[in-house]
Amino acid sequence: MNDELIFAEEQIPEPGNASPQKPWKILIVDDDEEVHSITKLALRNFTFDSRPLQFLHAYSGQEGIEQLTEHTDIAVCLLDVVMESEHAGLDTARAIRETLNNGFVRIVLRTGQPGQAPEETIIAEYDINDYKEKTELTRGKLHTLLYSCLRSYRDIISLDRSRQGLERILESSTQLHQKTYLKDFAQGILEQISAVLSPEEDAFYAKNNGVAAFEHSGNLRIIAGTGEYSEYENNDAAAVLPEDCRDILDDTSPGFRSKLTSSGFISLYRSNDEHTGLLFMRDLKTRNQLENHLLQMFCRNALTAFENISLRTLLEESQREIVYLLGDAVEHRSKETGFHLRRVSEISYLLAQRSGLSEEQAGFIREAAPLHDLGKIAIPDAILNKPDKLDATEWAVMKTHSEVGYEMLHSSDKPLLKMGAEIALDHHERWDGTGYPAGKAGTEISIAGRITAIADVFDALCSRRVYKPAWDIKQVEEYFQLQRGLHFDPDLVDILFENLDEFIAIQQRFPDPEPQPHD
Amino acid sequence: MNDELIFAEEQIPEPGNASPQKPWKILIVDDDEEVHSITKLALRNFTFDSRPLQFLHAYSGQEGIEQLTEHTDIAVCLLDVVMESEHAGLDTARAIRETLNNGFVRIVLRTGQPGQAPEETIIAEYDINDYKEKTELTRGKLHTLLYSCLRSYRDIISLDRSRQGLERILESSTQLHQKTYLKDFAQGILEQISAVLSPEEDAFYAKNNGVAAFEHSGNLRIIAGTGEYSEYENNDAAAVLPEDCRDILDDTSPGFRSKLTSSGFISLYRSNDEHTGLLFMRDLKTRNQLENHLLQMFCRNALTAFENISLRTLLEESQREIVYLLGDAVEHRSKETGFHLRRVSEISYLLAQRSGLSEEQAGFIREAAPLHDLGKIAIPDAILNKPDKLDATEWAVMKTHSEVGYEMLHSSDKPLLKMGAEIALDHHERWDGTGYPAGKAGTEISIAGRITAIADVFDALCSRRVYKPAWDIKQVEEYFQLQRGLHFDPDLVDILFENLDEFIAIQQRFPDPEPQPHD
Repeated sequence: MNDELIFAEEQIPEPGNASPQKPWKILIVDDDEEVHSITKLALRNFTFDSRPLQFLHAYSGQEGIEQLTEHTDIAVCLLDVVMESEHAGLDTARAIRETLNNGFVRIVLRTGQPGQAPEETIIAEYDINDYKEKTELTRGKLHTLLYSCLRSYRDIISLDRSRQGLERILESSTQLHQKTYLKDFAQGILEQISAVLSPEEDAFYAKNNGVAAFEHSGNLRIIAGTGEYSEYENNDAAAVLPEDCRDILDDTSPGFRSKLTSSGFISLYRSNDEHTGLLFMRDLKTRNQLENHLLQMFCRNALTAFENISLRTLLEESQREIVYLLGDAVEHRSKETGFHLRRVSEISYLLAQRSGLSEEQAGFIREAAPLHDLGKIAIPDAILNKPDKLDATEWAVMKTHSEVGYEMLHSSDKPLLKMGAEIALDHHERWDGTGYPAGKAGTEISIAGRITAIADVFDALCSRRVYKPAWDIKQVEEYFQLQRGLHFDPDLVDILFENLDEFIAIQQRFPDPEPQPHD
Repeated sequence: MNDELIFAEEQIPEPGNASPQKPWKILIVDDDEEVHSITKLALRNFTFDSRPLQFLHAYSGQEGIEQLTEHTDIAVCLLDVVMESEHAGLDTARAIRETLNNGFVRIVLRTGQPGQAPEETIIAEYDINDYKEKTELTRGKLHTLLYSCLRSYRDIISLDRSRQGLERILESSTQLHQKTYLKDFAQGILEQISAVLSPEEDAFYAKNNGVAAFEHSGNLRIIAGTGEYSEYENNDAAAVLPEDCRDILDDTSPGFRSKLTSSGFISLYRSNDEHTGLLFMRDLKTRNQLENHLLQMFCRNALTAFENISLRTLLEESQREIVYLLGDAVEHRSKETGFHLRRVSEISYLLAQRSGLSEEQAGFIREAAPLHDLGKIAIPDAILNKPDKLDATEWAVMKTHSEVGYEMLHSSDKPLLKMGAEIALDHHERWDGTGYPAGKAGTEISIAGRITAIADVFDALCSRRVYKPAWDIKQVEEYFQLQRGLHFDPDLVDILFENLDEFIAIQQRFPDPEPQPHD
């Protein structure tokens, strides 16, 4: 698999050009005012990596700690030994590392009385970075000292930024995996790209105009958009890409590719299975090689995960279609047409949600509801399609469909099919115990069975059938009022009434086609 | 979501106790032998972080570069300025950073002729970490210098290890996402745990005895095992966990948990949907806080991804079951029993693979093959189950099942259902153009149609039916030889013959039950 990472040459990310260079913070901790002024004088006009110095001043160990608490980005601390006590500086050095937990600031101990603080013991026992006698601190030596300290500090900070960036990517990757829905996942990727680059940054980085798209069967569909692209969901992604980003789509071989142009950043992953995930962030800029690297690491990781979630979503959709197909195959035999199953499914889902079931349980009920009449597959045409009333024997055969459906489904260990078995078995039971096949009563009947019983009858009454017109909603309400506690679970009927508008809306969302002549 | 990380107290990971402490490598580059011996003498018995020094010697800049090339873990380089040339040391310093690209070694320039190398210019222009005159290098000053350099080096190396560890985790996470199969994914996690911790390590870490398990519907099933657990696939994971790791299963609330005991390391993630992913590595030990941290980061990330892949796999299995159910529902009406559909599916898959289709295409054919007779759902009982030969009108009705099946499936945009439509439409076409419904010939017939036509007939001939006994394989071969190029694609028939044993093995893997009396 090739793995190209193209950063367009026109962009000059290094050195950072967005803001005037931040100074290096140098903290002088000394109870002698003169040491402060001499140090400042000696380092006047000093710069390192084109950045000047900014001096902070403390006149006791205690004040030093306060400054370091306030400024967590102090690069170098020049620390006197004898101040409020004979070992105030040593205590301060220890507190910086152990109490403030600051391992990054470079600590240079400066003593005027070397006898007080024997060098060999101190450098071994305290986690300091250098030990100087004040007499050594000529201008030249101070310059060398600052170069030495700032170089180490810069290297450490740069490695730590890199570490933090990677940690943020991993953390966001872990969080993203916990998103169940493709759109949430895609939205999450877009929101985290900026955070991964510059967690502390402001204005510019907050403008997040991006799209996440996924291609299968030749259609590069936008799954989520942020900012100005938030209205573009389900549109073709190629249409929103700027000219200078679009050519990345031309190469159809598997692998990762990224490109950073003046219009923005685009990253793409084609799997071996010919699926493509794409991320585009308009106007995104990076400020250095580290950000380029982090951006690529993030996108590679996010895009592979994105493919997985996309495929899962495709599977869910495809499974839903097959379940409907299965239900429709049964309906087809009994000459029912239209969207009965879709409506029963959605009505059951809404009832399940409103009755306080978990989203997962409600989801299974929605997915499995179309299987409620599966057992009718075994009912002979002569009975299933008999235009007249069934006689007792025929009715007994017809009623076997509950148990046949159950038998077809219940041996599966898949939650969806188990749920289908339960619904098939119980959807003709009645709250008062007069239903079939088992004559269960009340909560002996599974909640899924009680829910689909209501959904099935509600939709049948509201819809036109070959043998009856559609009832108006008042008649339907009267019927349910009458059957509350007889045929139907009274609590569920109350929930139906409390949310009647929403249930009617489902009816209207999936209208049946005009009636066909009976074939 | 809570996020507990329990490290059992009995383990004392810090300081590393596995091997005797590795020394810090100090490189002396000086053309004066005496400088080498004096430096060694002054630093005799010096230790830092309980680790001694190991001296490496070079007598020219060139030799210094050679040593640094060979030993990439040199901590400090004490570098003379004037050696083979007046600026040999300066050239060496530049080469270390720019040619060897080694930013970690602490370079201390030591000069005997300060006039030759003016301190202020050199410290500014060369990426060195300190500048000393040789006269300064008393025992005390050398000690301070070494402490200073080794502290920085230690901090930098430790951050870099952390960065590298995170980068390995991200890289392995990205690679894992590219695994299509749950078992490969789980196996990959187990293999990468050790690599993430200690890429360069040996013996101990190579012993990889671990399991990855996933729980749904109350069954904590081993998906993959390594080392001694490689035979435990599909077993209950709880049974293989040591006593002191097992209690992590007791807490059933959602979240991450890890535990490191003397028996090993266990990490667990329970999602809000009550799925659980579990990783266990027997005898795994960590050597420091960084490894603990990396281990947790890795497991958190891997377990969330593992859940996604597991759910996708469950969906695939559940979809396959539903497709069979759909096919079985049709078969149920036409009173066929047994595993005809499973066999047709597997035979089609093998033919597709052997004929050079991509794994993805072959997979779709396998999944969709059970839908080939879907249209029979619309054929009246009287025709479908007529014991006698059909008359011309009845036969015409029977033949509509190809197109009815196609109509039911083809409007989906899901690859599986599209494939089902193609198979339903073409599986009764014949190579010589005498089939139905369209009378297509040769490669006008889709490859999926040509494949399933062979699979359907092959299985029908090899199996017992109510109207005929099972043929023996010689008769079947003769029939296919006869129909090669008439009914069937000749190339596919050749592939069937070339792999006949494998096809017969499929027949035997899914035997039909004993015949039932016709009901």
